[in-house]
Amino acid sequence: MTILESIRGPHDLKALDRTALGELAREIREFLIQAVARTGGHLGPNLGVVELSIGLHRAFDSPVDRILWDTGHQSYVHKLLTGRQDFSKLRTKGGLSGYPSRAESEHDVIENSHASTVLGWADGLAKANEVLGRSGHVVAVIGDGALTGGMAWEALNNIAAVRDRPLIIVVNDNARSYGPTIGALAGHLAALRTSDGYERVLAWGKDALRRTPVVGQPLYGSLHGAKKGFKDAVAPQGMFEDLGLKYVGPIDGHDTDAVESALVRAKRFHGPVLVHCLTEKGRGYQAALDDEADRFHTVGAMDPLTCEPLAPAGGPSWTSVFGEELARLGAERPDIVALTAAMLHPTGLSRFAERFPERVWDVGIAEQHAAVCAAGLATGGLHPVVAVYATFLNRAFDQVLMDVALHRCGVTFVLDRAGVTGVDGPSHNGMWDLSVLQVVPGLRIAAPRDAAQLRGQLREAVDVDDAPTVLRFPKESVGPEVPALARLGGMDVLRRDEDAEVLLVAVGVLAPVCLQAAELLAGRGITCTVVDPRWVKPVDEQLAPLAARHQLVAVVEDNVRSGGVGWAVGQALRDAGVDVPLRGFGIPEQFLAHAKRGEVLADIGLTPVEIAGRIGAALAATTQAAAAAGKESDA
Amino acid sequence: MTILESIRGPHDLKALDRTALGELAREIREFLIQAVARTGGHLGPNLGVVELSIGLHRAFDSPVDRILWDTGHQSYVHKLLTGRQDFSKLRTKGGLSGYPSRAESEHDVIENSHASTVLGWADGLAKANEVLGRSGHVVAVIGDGALTGGMAWEALNNIAAVRDRPLIIVVNDNARSYGPTIGALAGHLAALRTSDGYERVLAWGKDALRRTPVVGQPLYGSLHGAKKGFKDAVAPQGMFEDLGLKYVGPIDGHDTDAVESALVRAKRFHGPVLVHCLTEKGRGYQAALDDEADRFHTVGAMDPLTCEPLAPAGGPSWTSVFGEELARLGAERPDIVALTAAMLHPTGLSRFAERFPERVWDVGIAEQHAAVCAAGLATGGLHPVVAVYATFLNRAFDQVLMDVALHRCGVTFVLDRAGVTGVDGPSHNGMWDLSVLQVVPGLRIAAPRDAAQLRGQLREAVDVDDAPTVLRFPKESVGPEVPALARLGGMDVLRRDEDAEVLLVAVGVLAPVCLQAAELLAGRGITCTVVDPRWVKPVDEQLAPLAARHQLVAVVEDNVRSGGVGWAVGQALRDAGVDVPLRGFGIPEQFLAHAKRGEVLADIGLTPVEIAGRIGAALAATTQAAAAAGKESDA
Repeated sequence: MTILESIRGPHDLKALDRTALGELAREIREFLIQAVARTGGHLGPNLGVVELSIGLHRAFDSPVDRILWDTGHQSYVHKLLTGRQDFSKLRTKGGLSGYPSRAESEHDVIENSHASTVLGWADGLAKANEVLGRSGHVVAVIGDGALTGGMAWEALNNIAAVRDRPLIIVVNDNARSYGPTIGALAGHLAALRTSDGYERVLAWGKDALRRTPVVGQPLYGSLHGAKKGFKDAVAPQGMFEDLGLKYVGPIDGHDTDAVESALVRAKRFHGPVLVHCLTEKGRGYQAALDDEADRFHTVGAMDPLTCEPLAPAGGPSWTSVFGEELARLGAERPDIVALTAAMLHPTGLSRFAERFPERVWDVGIAEQHAAVCAAGLATGGLHPVVAVYATFLNRAFDQVLMDVALHRCGVTFVLDRAGVTGVDGPSHNGMWDLSVLQVVPGLRIAAPRDAAQLRGQLREAVDVDDAPTVLRFPKESVGPEVPALARLGGMDVLRRDEDAEVLLVAVGVLAPVCLQAAELLAGRGITCTVVDPRWVKPVDEQLAPLAARHQLVAVVEDNVRSGGVGWAVGQALRDAGVDVPLRGFGIPEQFLAHAKRGEVLADIGLTPVEIAGRIGAALAATTQAAAAAGKESDA
Repeated sequence: MTILESIRGPHDLKALDRTALGELAREIREFLIQAVARTGGHLGPNLGVVELSIGLHRAFDSPVDRILWDTGHQSYVHKLLTGRQDFSKLRTKGGLSGYPSRAESEHDVIENSHASTVLGWADGLAKANEVLGRSGHVVAVIGDGALTGGMAWEALNNIAAVRDRPLIIVVNDNARSYGPTIGALAGHLAALRTSDGYERVLAWGKDALRRTPVVGQPLYGSLHGAKKGFKDAVAPQGMFEDLGLKYVGPIDGHDTDAVESALVRAKRFHGPVLVHCLTEKGRGYQAALDDEADRFHTVGAMDPLTCEPLAPAGGPSWTSVFGEELARLGAERPDIVALTAAMLHPTGLSRFAERFPERVWDVGIAEQHAAVCAAGLATGGLHPVVAVYATFLNRAFDQVLMDVALHRCGVTFVLDRAGVTGVDGPSHNGMWDLSVLQVVPGLRIAAPRDAAQLRGQLREAVDVDDAPTVLRFPKESVGPEVPALARLGGMDVLRRDEDAEVLLVAVGVLAPVCLQAAELLAGRGITCTVVDPRWVKPVDEQLAPLAARHQLVAVVEDNVRSGGVGWAVGQALRDAGVDVPLRGFGIPEQFLAHAKRGEVLADIGLTPVEIAGRIGAALAATTQAAAAAGKESDA
């Protein structure tokens, strides 16, 4: 039995000596590399927090003490230490989630996966402890990248204002989010890190603190008197102490003893403390360390030795098609600039960035700023393209509405990972954009169905200079081209049965699903027209008259039904006085557990068989109802 | 002719000497007090920025230089100095907007009225200048309160990171937003303000800088060498310099010379500079200074001497009904706590705060934090009530979805100023909540129609402990009680004609409008059922069967039609296979210009006459269509 296998819960950690802890860290790294190589998942971030996670679970008593992980993709070690060592089905249906999950363990609290939230959660939990007179520490682990998000600042402003409410902030500073962290705060952290006193502080962490008893007499008080003078001598205290937070650090985040000792000191201080831990993303895995782009932030299933992917690559990804076309556009139009929120590579902007480095900005994990800055750029005469994951645009809803749309700014938002993404679980699905953006005046949304459409619609989008446009497309490989038979208004007609009974409105990437459904219906003698509206907002003016020539309209979209294209088509028909029965197919209003995209689509009925079946039934029901109504009206 | 009357534009300011500038400031204050007392509007904030606005327009050359106002309610002086001195119709239809307005003047840029955005705009505009090689300064004016918002932090992180891109941040520090600004940053600003060197710095502003030539040789460079040592001696530099921003200040914001000189110095520095100006909200108007709650932040029309309101007060406001009931609930349930985003008084929480000061938190202008902190509080065992204006909840959409709803937290959001608010213009209308919140799984929304419903539904809401609830109600006085004839499911039946043809679904405060429309329809022989669904999300299960017994369904809501209750009812009917024609009445998908609420409602057709007329026409059309279909089906 390995040491790791002997760890059933955090209490088992506490009996281990220093040698055993070192061996445990080694075993955990080996486990992570092997396990994540088999299934795919977040690797670099977890390799970086092995000693930090061990130190946290030794210094604190979870779940009485609340250990909170920001974003949560770095919680694999925490999972291993809290009784979850079966990683064989990581991020697959029925297996472990890639993020903390309250269903999995009482040691998990936050499962949202959107960055920068942990300090707000911690502030709430600490206040609840205070109101209810409850003991138990609140410890928030946040990356330096996540500190660039505005929510973190809002929370710091609240946390640091109250000097006697205990709360421990652990900054996991690896100088990276996906790529290197940018911005003024990163500069400040670097100053803390690289000041003259840095080496001495590390030595202090390694030697002086090693002698700190882990439990026992209150050490903090005795150190505290001397500390201020000592720290002033060796490191600039900087903005955190300006705000009223006690600052402890920097600490070598790969020295379990140092981490543990610092945390024990911090928990004895009755007020807000920030413990600054320096870690290395990808630690202990040379292939990850060699990867300058993202240090193996996420990997697919691969050979852990060669790092060759286990599955053959599909065709080009939607992301790469977008990235190439944008670079081409950048060469044609010097006014096109690009923005990313800490995800230059994942959103496909790297090619544009290589060619036009002075026209692309990584704003940090700061979608709000990306949108507002884009409004400023557009007002200043440029055309910004903001590339984000669909789920993260929710952070900037107010800014899209109030800054970009109200000011009629020509800004193109490109939403990658739209629709069901699957393996990353509920908070990574990009299933809300087609709904919440419906209220934004003047905004247009394109849902390209194939690579050619993506290229063409991106060009259409950047030509709009007085309103925001949105393009949305899914994760993974782009499928084969889906040819159009004709253009009707702005819509592409994809199938045209004679005297068709059913009008199928296929949103974006679900065009092939709709064509297959139409084929199945044809087999039952039901005729269909299939259109791809291309621009799903506003609803094309030709749609209502076309609908009026059918007996049933069905809208199929890779988005939550509530508020989506189906609802919008409903209003367009009603406004035109077209009361043809309508049925909507999309994602039900619920959070979707992690599973492969195909599995999720099958579970929620977004398959040709299911859609065809339900359309057939609806058509039969409405025909009967019409006949009955006809008899009544005749009677 | 007064000096103020002689100012046609910023250039007219530049010829004035110090005496004339002092007289101008006095005239402007007198003008503001008289003008705003006549129409109502933002008073305290504008009295605080008289000298600051004059200094800005003397130091810079608008519109070539861009002077940007955060939030914008403090732009009245700027309006007076840029050719807009007719305040007789301030905030009324056809008159001046209460915020900057690009339609009014080329000197206005941002008109969103949501706080903390200006630094993002400035970052974008400065980057555009850089890319396009264009000259012209970018100056962002932001309050200390707005610096508590996360967007400000995100922008600072970007702005301060680039040392050679010019951008001037003017912090208008009056230590207040509505009420006193809270949080750690406020503490830090206070430290800057009250350090030993403060008086000397003020003296420096008044005397040394008074000798600075306004135009001419580059002064900054010569001062710069000496400055660092000088400033270190007199004031702590603090977090802004830690981040890489040049800090100038503190400056007496009521000394026009000092302000102007500091700005002239700042604009000669080729990088990001922060100019810290101390001002007094309500300056020069004793009645405002005496008002500790908000220093006359906004006033209604009043006598400027006695401050008595000109119009008789209506009945109790929705806000006060909520505030009283929450205080009552607080006494009954010790687990109820309250959160506000810098608006304790405007959202009606003051009564609760007086009785339970340890159970209420002002988090700053930080709606995101309010929502996430509430998730933490709920997870910690309390029931938080988050009171915000409806329009500002948009800032926290992602957090309501990902933190509160995904984690099934019992949090009650109370949205004041829902629907058309009117005079504050497009960005203050609370017309999006019923749409964007539709996608949130498990969330319930109540739209009370009268005070009794508000009290009852608030009690229902705080009893929900595993999902978020939302209550929304409008500005101004609550109307008389609207009695129910019966309860059907969770819905109140308000009118019940025999064999009714039309089902009117009346959302919240529009119940009386619908009852009047039904009465008008009755006059034309058209019979109606009127229901108030009370909880508009989810749609009541009894609604579809009820609809099936009518020939037309009409949904009337004080919210944008796109994505609102009308669309949701549409889906509920379709899912039940009820294809009764449906018509939706609500706010069109556009931004609404400022005017009185009643005027806006009339303009967009939310009146009994208009609704009755359109329902009559729709019923006739659908009856004809059904008859035609009957004939076809019979043929």
